[in-house]
Amino acid sequence: MPARINSGFLQVRHRYLFQEVARRVAAFRASHPDADVIPLGIGDVTQPLAPAVIQAMHRAVDDLSQAESFHGYGPENGYDWLREAIAEGDYRSRGIAVDADEIFVNDGAKSDLGNILDLFAGENIVGIPDPVYPAYVDANLLDSRQVRFIPCTEENHYAGEIPQGWLDIIYLCFPNNPTGAVITREHLSEWVRYAREHDSLILFDSAYETFIRDETYPRSIYEIAGADECAIEFRSFSKTAGFTGVRCGYTVIPKALSVCTSSGQRMGLGPLWEFRQGCKFNGASYVAQRGAAAIYTADGRKQTREITDGYLRTAGIIREGLRSAGLSASGGENAPYVWTRTPEGMDDWEFFDRLLTATGIVVTPGSGFGAEGKGHFRITSFGDPGRTAQAMERLKRFVDGL
Amino acid sequence: MPARINSGFLQVRHRYLFQEVARRVAAFRASHPDADVIPLGIGDVTQPLAPAVIQAMHRAVDDLSQAESFHGYGPENGYDWLREAIAEGDYRSRGIAVDADEIFVNDGAKSDLGNILDLFAGENIVGIPDPVYPAYVDANLLDSRQVRFIPCTEENHYAGEIPQGWLDIIYLCFPNNPTGAVITREHLSEWVRYAREHDSLILFDSAYETFIRDETYPRSIYEIAGADECAIEFRSFSKTAGFTGVRCGYTVIPKALSVCTSSGQRMGLGPLWEFRQGCKFNGASYVAQRGAAAIYTADGRKQTREITDGYLRTAGIIREGLRSAGLSASGGENAPYVWTRTPEGMDDWEFFDRLLTATGIVVTPGSGFGAEGKGHFRITSFGDPGRTAQAMERLKRFVDGL
Repeated sequence: MPARINSGFLQVRHRYLFQEVARRVAAFRASHPDADVIPLGIGDVTQPLAPAVIQAMHRAVDDLSQAESFHGYGPENGYDWLREAIAEGDYRSRGIAVDADEIFVNDGAKSDLGNILDLFAGENIVGIPDPVYPAYVDANLLDSRQVRFIPCTEENHYAGEIPQGWLDIIYLCFPNNPTGAVITREHLSEWVRYAREHDSLILFDSAYETFIRDETYPRSIYEIAGADECAIEFRSFSKTAGFTGVRCGYTVIPKALSVCTSSGQRMGLGPLWEFRQGCKFNGASYVAQRGAAAIYTADGRKQTREITDGYLRTAGIIREGLRSAGLSASGGENAPYVWTRTPEGMDDWEFFDRLLTATGIVVTPGSGFGAEGKGHFRITSFGDPGRTAQAMERLKRFVDGL
Repeated sequence: MPARINSGFLQVRHRYLFQEVARRVAAFRASHPDADVIPLGIGDVTQPLAPAVIQAMHRAVDDLSQAESFHGYGPENGYDWLREAIAEGDYRSRGIAVDADEIFVNDGAKSDLGNILDLFAGENIVGIPDPVYPAYVDANLLDSRQVRFIPCTEENHYAGEIPQGWLDIIYLCFPNNPTGAVITREHLSEWVRYAREHDSLILFDSAYETFIRDETYPRSIYEIAGADECAIEFRSFSKTAGFTGVRCGYTVIPKALSVCTSSGQRMGLGPLWEFRQGCKFNGASYVAQRGAAAIYTADGRKQTREITDGYLRTAGIIREGLRSAGLSASGGENAPYVWTRTPEGMDDWEFFDRLLTATGIVVTPGSGFGAEGKGHFRITSFGDPGRTAQAMERLKRFVDGL
């Protein structure tokens, strides 16, 4: 027999959403070399790193220049000084009981959100919100897992109805990508109750928690009692501190968390993940980890907060601009994303193409995030504020002219 | 049903070799706080990064400090300037036809050597050399693939007999970890011929190619005609340029390479890998990639060559020391590893423990690399030359006293 392909590849669309957006933008630029393109599509940051982080990274590079301070392979799950800073800074100081050895440092949340699936059998039934970050679905289809979608609509405040049927693994993402929605403590408690009753596992993506300004919303699922027995939390420095190019994030796997073997025996998830990472990962870059640790210094906190405050002000410009164009606007208050309906019920890929051609503005078509995203689009607040304001004026003129 | 574990986890030993070595060393240090430990176990470098690399990394950090030069998400498969430098520097300039779009930059070879398996069906039969880097076996057991071992012994120059039976996927690693063996052009051609005849795929780990000093040995499998139709090559900057803590490497997936679906249709491997990485990876750190590109400058080449020359001189000290202790010594001439039999046929974990307790020297027990490694141990040349010489004297006294 020749070497054979994982048949999961026959089930996925062969172009990842943002690759398709990039392809269309590249084609547009090629045919319109003088066009003034304003990218408000992919959720990538544009502001430079905080000075405290820059200093720490320079020092880390210097460490690598001398044998005495050189660092080779680090611990696969991150240096203790970073794990400790995270546990204290993001959890214990907020009254949430998470220990340093429950923190697993990685090269970004996307890697772990996909790779965590290595731990689970193919026969688990997976519940995935719709619309949502498309990598969740693709990663599960590659493993040929059954996916059930959880519609997240205006009616349920984009937080999903608690399902009637049985789901073994459930993805949740709050603040949400793409809708910018947050989840209330009460609603999240219902999800935790469901998971505990069904012995299912929640994969909680809180990559955008740093944008929560209304403190009545939970920033971590572990603020909900019992979540440490049913949830893994994924965090990223990408949006917290502009690390999209630096690559560092972390995953929280509480010691209380376990899964079942087919014979009903329970095994702790943390040791399984350690084994997986020991086998297929060699730790995040030392320079990135030193930079990440600097986020938790007094200067680092203040400086990164100013950056995210800036993005939220830009989100305000977007919300305002959409409204003045007569469009809806949800999200953007505790999240960097604003979610809106296309004008006149236009197909969202058609809207994407027409908007790009007419104005040079790049948004993300909602159907790229799932069936419930049809007829919507997402705008990100990570662009330059002045350019974003300019884009919103162009968008208003475009919509007015339809 | 509760969330269920991937049953592959029930098939692996639950401690990765180097984690077990680290555990025993930690226990020894705890009970002997004054012991002078000399680590010659894990294959981690100790020399600082080359000045050209340090400069490039500082400049990269500076880029991230200004909005004008900031870099967020990079291309998942690496920046074109790095892919181009690799294709030219490691291949085309040596007369090997590899294009930049066949180079896939990653955060280190270990990640890709494991993650590449996402592309392949569980029913592929995998041939793995014995002894070998243990992560290959573990990664396949996690996917419940059938593994057939290929004995690599003194008799076949540690390069494996060509098998009689059918293997769908074959791992090869030259210069070899742990034996330090290189493979001749003729022997590698036989492996390529086998793969082409059987439509099987070779995963060629050449993380240590930079240590080849005898140019009659192939540095890349693509020096063998037809290998571009049957082999993926994995390379790393970890050993080439001391990047074990920086995290950057690359994988070569030739455009000519394809796999079969169950219906016999062929699909190109490159696009499948792009999809996998688009879904579960977000690129290597910008700072690491800038550092890697500097390896290919004139200064970078000269400086990194001096570092690896130094390690090979240390390998010479190890070979000499083993011989003066009356032990065998293979490898260490075109590889940073020296492989040897334990004295008096002693069990290798027993030898490990006794040597550590008596002398503070850490080696790696051969059986950790497979059944054929029993009664052997590996010494790495990455330590300080003076300390390594001191260790070899201690080892001689220890062996003499047995």
